[in-house]
Amino acid sequence: MTIDRVHAARSVAAELGVDLLVLTPGADLRYLCGYDAHAMERLTALAVPRSGEPFLVVPRLEAPMVDAGPAGALGLELLAWDETDDAFAVLAGAATARLGTAPARVAVGSRTWAEHALGVHRALPGSALELAAPVVDRLRMVKTPAEIEELALAGAAIDRVHARMGEWLTVGRTEADIGADIAAAIRAEGHVGVDFTIVGSGPNGASPHHELSDRTVQAGELVVVDIGGETATGYRSDCTRTYVVGGSASAEVAEWYGVLHAAQQAATAAVRPGVTAEQIDAAAREVISSAGWGEYFIHRTGHGIGLDTHEAPYIVAGNDLPLEPGMAFSVEPGIYLPGRHGARIEDIVVCTDDGVRVLNNGPRGLVELPG
Amino acid sequence: MTIDRVHAARSVAAELGVDLLVLTPGADLRYLCGYDAHAMERLTALAVPRSGEPFLVVPRLEAPMVDAGPAGALGLELLAWDETDDAFAVLAGAATARLGTAPARVAVGSRTWAEHALGVHRALPGSALELAAPVVDRLRMVKTPAEIEELALAGAAIDRVHARMGEWLTVGRTEADIGADIAAAIRAEGHVGVDFTIVGSGPNGASPHHELSDRTVQAGELVVVDIGGETATGYRSDCTRTYVVGGSASAEVAEWYGVLHAAQQAATAAVRPGVTAEQIDAAAREVISSAGWGEYFIHRTGHGIGLDTHEAPYIVAGNDLPLEPGMAFSVEPGIYLPGRHGARIEDIVVCTDDGVRVLNNGPRGLVELPG
Repeated sequence: MTIDRVHAARSVAAELGVDLLVLTPGADLRYLCGYDAHAMERLTALAVPRSGEPFLVVPRLEAPMVDAGPAGALGLELLAWDETDDAFAVLAGAATARLGTAPARVAVGSRTWAEHALGVHRALPGSALELAAPVVDRLRMVKTPAEIEELALAGAAIDRVHARMGEWLTVGRTEADIGADIAAAIRAEGHVGVDFTIVGSGPNGASPHHELSDRTVQAGELVVVDIGGETATGYRSDCTRTYVVGGSASAEVAEWYGVLHAAQQAATAAVRPGVTAEQIDAAAREVISSAGWGEYFIHRTGHGIGLDTHEAPYIVAGNDLPLEPGMAFSVEPGIYLPGRHGARIEDIVVCTDDGVRVLNNGPRGLVELPG
Repeated sequence: MTIDRVHAARSVAAELGVDLLVLTPGADLRYLCGYDAHAMERLTALAVPRSGEPFLVVPRLEAPMVDAGPAGALGLELLAWDETDDAFAVLAGAATARLGTAPARVAVGSRTWAEHALGVHRALPGSALELAAPVVDRLRMVKTPAEIEELALAGAAIDRVHARMGEWLTVGRTEADIGADIAAAIRAEGHVGVDFTIVGSGPNGASPHHELSDRTVQAGELVVVDIGGETATGYRSDCTRTYVVGGSASAEVAEWYGVLHAAQQAATAAVRPGVTAEQIDAAAREVISSAGWGEYFIHRTGHGIGLDTHEAPYIVAGNDLPLEPGMAFSVEPGIYLPGRHGARIEDIVVCTDDGVRVLNNGPRGLVELPG
């Protein structure tokens, strides 16, 4: 970790006319200065004025930890505030001093809590409040080779969990019990935390964000398993496969699943620099729509991934952002038949200099498990 | 769960002149309508106009789940938005229709993400944005008898973990290994999630929010163990005890620990309706200061607890809020000697009609473990 990312953010802020960036605990803060802070009501913030030195505002309680950690090693000035201080005034005063004038445009992290965003705004009453995403996302979206390797490790870890699915996904067990076993395996296979475990059996698979229930898996039905976790470095995994347990898919299922599979492959194959995010979405959607299943593909094709599971770029109609080498995102079309069942195939992919690298590599066909 | 809390929030909003409340995933949303939503970039919000019917704005993906869940059972109108819709415009339009005019004062949850807060504001350009805390905290701060029983169950669960500390906290083990065992026990003893595991051995105990490290516990040193988790109903536990492992406390430690213990008891005994939050803080602080250790008590005395681990009321100088029956909060003074060690004693307490109920009941003296 070096101070380079903080300085890069300052350069982009200056270029876009943003006077002050304020980033609070979460992926923005961790990305920029390595500080994996606990989100809480006490203000912790990295402040990056468009000129002058960036600084950290932290509760005095946290100061020893921060100083001993990666952010301390960057040489960032630490402004510690006491329990009865006005932390927002501390931040506003230091930023104004560095800028030589009060900032006019103040940008906060997308996931900064409103109490912190509005607290900063109140302490800088002449300013206009906006999101820092145009600055920070420009950096975070394009992964370095080291970040891509972290995502590849996460991808391989979640692939190992899917490869063991037959140990837990059996007929007669509840989604909740299966999910608990998967969660333990996510930890065992190289993650420090579980982000989500979706086990959508039968009709539950038709609700894309169904998580877990007490429903028991029946023989021969489809089960959508969408799982992900956080590795020690903060990078995320996210991979979906669809299973048939104790039976085989019907001819009808095999037909539309084949369409889905082709759509997922088409979208992946479309990834290369200069193609827009919405063109990747369209590549998947066209295959499904032209086969007559378009009305059952009810969500965007994907989302960026990195230190957050969902981040820019979003692979959705209306997003004309051209892909660049280093952008990492999911390609995850699905088909959902309400009341019956659903299926989704999801890989994390990275745009390379001339095409695509796929970070999940388990079989993408319907996986038949003995049950 | 009934619609009563939503209606109560509407009444308080009207009383305070707030035209529209917007609450996103997190404790506010769960408290008001029972919806334990996953926080994500897609807008999910409970909108409560000061007049007219409240409604939920949810991504269409989530709609089937929401409808089948507790929020659906309340009869709240569900406005589902599609992936390429402007969810903020959907919310703004429906709120304006109910009010008969665009809202002037729009209040968002304290922990609502800035991208959602600013998105709502952008869709209601004439409005002023503020925090919903004055409305929502007034309700959330005063726990019902049922909520107090949930907190009592959580308290008893974390007490059981502390009671087993000798199984894991032994000389020569690392804080990280001890913490992993504690985390497993937090789950085993009645929680669905671990919020934090602080194991501060020796000098690490002097940093109140130190979490875990690779440092090994030495014979005879103090170890601060501050742990908490989330129960199935969302209510939280949070309890700190300080241990001596494989030895006994020195006379000096015994002296200041006795002061700390007396301070914790004095603050707890001061709890009754009408006493202010800052008076509880002062009750602890006076005991420690008058014994000459005041400079080493470097944080507030406590924080409210409920569906969030830290919530209103904060027990801190400057908070003149009078306590009311049903308010639940921590009483957790500490003494921290930089570079050497520290100690903290923390219980969750509830203000009753005529005094206090203490929800953590393990021994509060220095707990000597064989090591």
